[in-house]
Amino acid sequence: MPLFNKVAIVGTGLIGGSIALDLKKKGLCKIIAGVSRHQESLKFAKKTGAIDIGSQSLCVIKDSDLVILAAPVSAIKEKARRIAEIISKDCIVFDVASTKEEIVSLLDPLFPRFVGAHPIAGSERKGIKNARPGLFKDSICILTSTKRTDALALNKIKKLWLELGAKVVLMKPQAHDRILAFVSHMPHVAAFALINSVPSDCLGLAPNSLKDTTRVASSDSGLWSDIILSNKKNVITAVKVLENKISDIKKSLLRNDRKHLIKILNQAKARRDLLNASNPT
Amino acid sequence: MPLFNKVAIVGTGLIGGSIALDLKKKGLCKIIAGVSRHQESLKFAKKTGAIDIGSQSLCVIKDSDLVILAAPVSAIKEKARRIAEIISKDCIVFDVASTKEEIVSLLDPLFPRFVGAHPIAGSERKGIKNARPGLFKDSICILTSTKRTDALALNKIKKLWLELGAKVVLMKPQAHDRILAFVSHMPHVAAFALINSVPSDCLGLAPNSLKDTTRVASSDSGLWSDIILSNKKNVITAVKVLENKISDIKKSLLRNDRKHLIKILNQAKARRDLLNASNPT
Repeated sequence: MPLFNKVAIVGTGLIGGSIALDLKKKGLCKIIAGVSRHQESLKFAKKTGAIDIGSQSLCVIKDSDLVILAAPVSAIKEKARRIAEIISKDCIVFDVASTKEEIVSLLDPLFPRFVGAHPIAGSERKGIKNARPGLFKDSICILTSTKRTDALALNKIKKLWLELGAKVVLMKPQAHDRILAFVSHMPHVAAFALINSVPSDCLGLAPNSLKDTTRVASSDSGLWSDIILSNKKNVITAVKVLENKISDIKKSLLRNDRKHLIKILNQAKARRDLLNASNPT
Repeated sequence: MPLFNKVAIVGTGLIGGSIALDLKKKGLCKIIAGVSRHQESLKFAKKTGAIDIGSQSLCVIKDSDLVILAAPVSAIKEKARRIAEIISKDCIVFDVASTKEEIVSLLDPLFPRFVGAHPIAGSERKGIKNARPGLFKDSICILTSTKRTDALALNKIKKLWLELGAKVVLMKPQAHDRILAFVSHMPHVAAFALINSVPSDCLGLAPNSLKDTTRVASSDSGLWSDIILSNKKNVITAVKVLENKISDIKKSLLRNDRKHLIKILNQAKARRDLLNASNPT
């Protein structure tokens, strides 16, 4: 049964496009309108059946009962007021940005029925061409709530993500940003720094250890600069912890302290093995 | 056609066992003797057909024309003299240790026909139970040569690794250790530090970025303590470069320098994309 009548997706990229494909496949809405700056993305989205109507103009989102903000954060910031003018007060709005405190504090007052969402299912690839149905199956989607959050809207968006196969976790935007700094933004910073540390003449001998630890360094530079800048405070805190842990290993090496090194590596193994147990993928 | 008559493998673990399975499958020798401290490993190796004879005693390596040293470095150091006493001067010997300068300088004077080898095909798993034929297919095997190296022995070992499907790269032990510090040991140090930096209450929300960047943190603690300690000088140099690169990103965040951040991330993406191009796996 459709949860929504008309859904508008502002930003038909990897995430927006994948949500659209799933909404269609699962019959969760009657019609989908897509908005993008890129005519080519709209064409592709229409061809794959992700959207019914595509437009470079925001006017196409009129009369939606759900608007999904899946454009880059800078574009969302720019367009939010205009979107609020076009849609009705009853329209539910959610974003999918990777950091929440900044964007939620901006959008919460603008839209009466706003919910912050962060589907943890991205990839180092981007764009509608990499969109696919089932992207969110068995993934985690974090929804954020604040004092302003409309309970019915939150419930409906939760239902939508459950239908998309995600496990839904609810938290405050501040808690989200602290956790994501550690589990996602810090590992990205490490990956960027790692690959930039390898002298060019060594790259030809890259084993899987280097490939895996740096896979996410292929991520989009603009997108990821914005993510870590918008979560600056937490990312810096996390990176300082990382610097201390690296320094601890370096010092053990300097003083030839095999015992302490083994203790550090045992702790690392125990913690990493936990991820295998809890997340068999 | 068999390259060898009797091959002895000292250390029937992941690497030793996988070499044995391939030697057998490809008919590269007539008989394989396995030595291990662990009775269970020998039993398992015999059951899977990796070895013909298994023993906890080194005596079983007598009359081999090839001895493969695939035990942990500490065990090799301990047993090297005893092995040299048992085998003939014509017997070719190679090790498979992950660092080369220390072990080669020790073994080179002991065995007249010694070659240093490092098949870059390990895994965070270890033990004969994870051994499999084809482990080295399309991998890289680095062979090291010194002034002492016997050219015919080197050629025969090169032939063996080519038969196992590896691409063979030749270099000095010193060059090997410098490169491996950057492409393997430093990424391991980063992975150990990364997973130890994540607060326990955040681990349940680990996305693929954290899983991939830390996969190798599940590696064996004793083995990896020995590897990075034995290549201490180069690893510390590499880790210092990493620390500078991390600090550079942190400083860009502190001064809100999006332009410099994008430059760093673009460089990272360009370098990481190179690995995809050159190594399609």
